[in-house]
Amino acid sequence: MTQPARIWTAALLVIGDEILSGRTQDKNVTQVATWLNVQGIRLAEVRVVGDTEAAIVEAVNALRARNDYLFTTGGIGPTHDDITVDAVAAALGVGVEIHPQARAILERYYESRGGLTEARLRMARVPAGAELIPNRMSGAPGIRVGNVFLMAGVPSITAGMLDALTGTLEGGQPVLSETIGCWVAESEIAELLRETETAHAGSAIGSYPFFREGRTGANFVIRATDPALLEACAQALATGLRAMGREAVPGGI
Amino acid sequence: MTQPARIWTAALLVIGDEILSGRTQDKNVTQVATWLNVQGIRLAEVRVVGDTEAAIVEAVNALRARNDYLFTTGGIGPTHDDITVDAVAAALGVGVEIHPQARAILERYYESRGGLTEARLRMARVPAGAELIPNRMSGAPGIRVGNVFLMAGVPSITAGMLDALTGTLEGGQPVLSETIGCWVAESEIAELLRETETAHAGSAIGSYPFFREGRTGANFVIRATDPALLEACAQALATGLRAMGREAVPGGI
Repeated sequence: MTQPARIWTAALLVIGDEILSGRTQDKNVTQVATWLNVQGIRLAEVRVVGDTEAAIVEAVNALRARNDYLFTTGGIGPTHDDITVDAVAAALGVGVEIHPQARAILERYYESRGGLTEARLRMARVPAGAELIPNRMSGAPGIRVGNVFLMAGVPSITAGMLDALTGTLEGGQPVLSETIGCWVAESEIAELLRETETAHAGSAIGSYPFFREGRTGANFVIRATDPALLEACAQALATGLRAMGREAVPGGI
Repeated sequence: MTQPARIWTAALLVIGDEILSGRTQDKNVTQVATWLNVQGIRLAEVRVVGDTEAAIVEAVNALRARNDYLFTTGGIGPTHDDITVDAVAAALGVGVEIHPQARAILERYYESRGGLTEARLRMARVPAGAELIPNRMSGAPGIRVGNVFLMAGVPSITAGMLDALTGTLEGGQPVLSETIGCWVAESEIAELLRETETAHAGSAIGSYPFFREGRTGANFVIRATDPALLEACAQALATGLRAMGREAVPGGI
């Protein structure tokens, strides 16, 4: 028997009143999840909290303890509602300090943009002992402290920070997936899905129904870390659908 | 002195592997948040968990205890990965039963669609003691049990369930908001934002920077429950921006 491979997990904490008020549609969950998967790390849970220190502290401590990594997005800018650094420092029980390299980066960045004001210097503040995550886009760096990674809320800046972290984190086998679409009510083939998943231990089949142009359909997403198992499970599902007189659309509908 | 108005809060639990894998972009946080605000209820926190009973149970019990209401989306369909009803029943310590009215609704709905199979009958299962939330779109109802509301994952169906709940929940004063946009780096006016917020106790100003066509700007969202306070705070911010030689764009950029 081979040892089951270690599964690496991460949590994501989205910080910002603008998400909870419904004003802003979050884009970071999807991009962080997709990026993590390529690193061989599974996004195990997400929380969204407002710009409130107590809420951030509680979530940071719960999530960093039970996952290999914790990522946060939002609240690292220069304004009064940017309190992520202070809250994470409080959660870790460390002080806040000016990171000399962050200060130098900001001095350079703002040299031609009106200079490094007190508000802008806020973006050089980090929990004590932190390292920086490069931000090629807007000067202010992200922050790594222990297994906690503080990133920007603006999705394009977050993307750049993720890019800077690519390949630097220890992970396991990426989860592979294959999608099969079918114009069928998922309730008609629920038994086939259950049987196919059970017959392929280590795989998982998700069923995602949709309604388009007055028709009912569903996409079935098969997931596994072993490519041979993934292929076998997907084949079995497609064969099962065809045996019921249904077309199985590779790649999904 | 008037009594401070009671603030009603809700949490949202988004259930589904498809969100955590990055396959599906969640749309329910935004629509539930927006809907709640109209009901005078504030979305205080969101969690996203996968299709795992232990994770759902933990989140349900944490969130329902400290909020007036808990909403869940996802996992109430007919397939093997739809485990929300069982998990919520486990969290509440109650059994699962077939709701007679849900069964009747499904029988009628599927009469012309191949009949009520065993898989479809799963959608009539509810935690003991639950009431139904009408679903005009696809037959299977949502479920209310105590202060927990189980809704569909498909956003258009969730929307219908929210619509059916409109005006039925006790809430307080809706949070009003006004947005002012400005082509400015938020770091340049951080002090103005902080001072304006402090001078208008009971208001909150969020600062949301963006980068478009190579230019830096930000939208400032002022929130308050009192319309006069909201207006005064928004006016003061606009006046402050103009005093710094900046245009304040009503409604945001």
